[in-house]
Amino acid sequence: LNAAVKRAPIGVFDSGVGGLTVLRALRAAMPDESFIYLGDTARLPYGTKSDQTVVRYSLQCAAVLVARGIRALVVACNTASASSLQALRLHYPDLPIIGVIQPGAEAAVAASTSKRIAVIGTEGTIQGGAYQRAIRTLHGAASIEAVACSLFVAMAEEGWTEGPIVESVARRYLDPLFASASQPAPDTLVLGCTHFPVLAGAIRAVLPPQVRMVDSALTTAAAVRLRLQASETAASEISNTGAAMTWLATDGAARFARVGSIFLGETLLPQSIEIVDL
Amino acid sequence: LNAAVKRAPIGVFDSGVGGLTVLRALRAAMPDESFIYLGDTARLPYGTKSDQTVVRYSLQCAAVLVARGIRALVVACNTASASSLQALRLHYPDLPIIGVIQPGAEAAVAASTSKRIAVIGTEGTIQGGAYQRAIRTLHGAASIEAVACSLFVAMAEEGWTEGPIVESVARRYLDPLFASASQPAPDTLVLGCTHFPVLAGAIRAVLPPQVRMVDSALTTAAAVRLRLQASETAASEISNTGAAMTWLATDGAARFARVGSIFLGETLLPQSIEIVDL
Repeated sequence: LNAAVKRAPIGVFDSGVGGLTVLRALRAAMPDESFIYLGDTARLPYGTKSDQTVVRYSLQCAAVLVARGIRALVVACNTASASSLQALRLHYPDLPIIGVIQPGAEAAVAASTSKRIAVIGTEGTIQGGAYQRAIRTLHGAASIEAVACSLFVAMAEEGWTEGPIVESVARRYLDPLFASASQPAPDTLVLGCTHFPVLAGAIRAVLPPQVRMVDSALTTAAAVRLRLQASETAASEISNTGAAMTWLATDGAARFARVGSIFLGETLLPQSIEIVDL
Repeated sequence: LNAAVKRAPIGVFDSGVGGLTVLRALRAAMPDESFIYLGDTARLPYGTKSDQTVVRYSLQCAAVLVARGIRALVVACNTASASSLQALRLHYPDLPIIGVIQPGAEAAVAASTSKRIAVIGTEGTIQGGAYQRAIRTLHGAASIEAVACSLFVAMAEEGWTEGPIVESVARRYLDPLFASASQPAPDTLVLGCTHFPVLAGAIRAVLPPQVRMVDSALTTAAAVRLRLQASETAASEISNTGAAMTWLATDGAARFARVGSIFLGETLLPQSIEIVDL
């Protein structure tokens, strides 16, 4: 019997603080688990860098987390999920590794009746086309509209998460997709950026009511839980006393704490963040 | 007589495309000059990086431009102007080197009657405090309000330069400075970011009419012209046939051309941009 075994933490990394929406969803889905979050704030953004560079950064982030004894790795960054999962899995073949794109794509295809799906994300994510490819792989005939919503990132980081300005910006991006008379509108919208869940209320407010919204943070958390449940001892047999959080960043504890609090939905203190050098 | 001497170009660098507002002002002020512009797009943003790293990047940018025979260097980047001018001048003691902060600070102190001055910029520029220091050095008793306007950068890069959304965002940032009953309002506003001149109309529209706006792109261009006039042969004695433009970037010619066209105010073609490796 392994009843006294303490469960190792789950590692989560992102280029910055956006992945904290994924961490928040993970903690809500698995409240007894311990997590280590690493934000590579010194080198953000990943979205403008070459695939080769992002793979190298992702391997460095994973190495820090693996050295701290994680038992699963969540890549809470769209850019790294698109470019680095294969390399990470080759380096750590026994570690469950989950990205944010595949769960969002699966949830979108499951949610959509018409298979007309809209995806919004950063310029890098949309131009990279990873969501579009993942959705088409699941459903070859899907009709996909993809739009970069760059201001959503800036508004989320500024803490402007609701109100008339946010809704005006959301309308400017989304009305051409959903309020155009010239084509059948999508019935599903994927929030394909880790920053966007904090704007979900404002985005929902400007969408037609029948449109289903897929939050890739929530779907990733659900995928992680399923994956671990499938491969591990039932939670009831493991001692999980004292779920712990460890916060790591590569630069700027003050900004990480301030902006991160918006994404995490609770107050982060700068002194609780350990700065690591990659 | 040097009548047949062809004048060497002026070099301009920035971390990205924002410095194109400075280049635009330089070309308007000195239409017969040739310019080489370098945008270090592969490594932007500079604002989140350490001073030491920005100095290294600035020296690399300068080296590329010096190798192409420039006769003056304009640092069209607030972050690099704040951290790197001294190192650049030590490396190139005979080259006139002009940054964007000192001219803006001088223009603000000259424009302000009350010496209550507001400065807006990116988070990095405002927190770094370079404008505040430059203004206080010129006028020790100046009262300075400094506010980071992060969304202005995103809106400018998106090409949202006017209209109700931009004005709503501008009001949200600026009303606390200029429409507060609790304190005397500043009489001068410094646009302390190279992105902001493209939003000048919308910013002007929400300011009280008596407030003077200092555009650091225009003031930098005026400072460069004065500096070169003071040290060089009169323009009439030099052959300036065929003022030429050379465009260099370290990554992403397509995005440089698309977003750069907004800042430059004219169409840039991707094929006219040479990608250089630093």
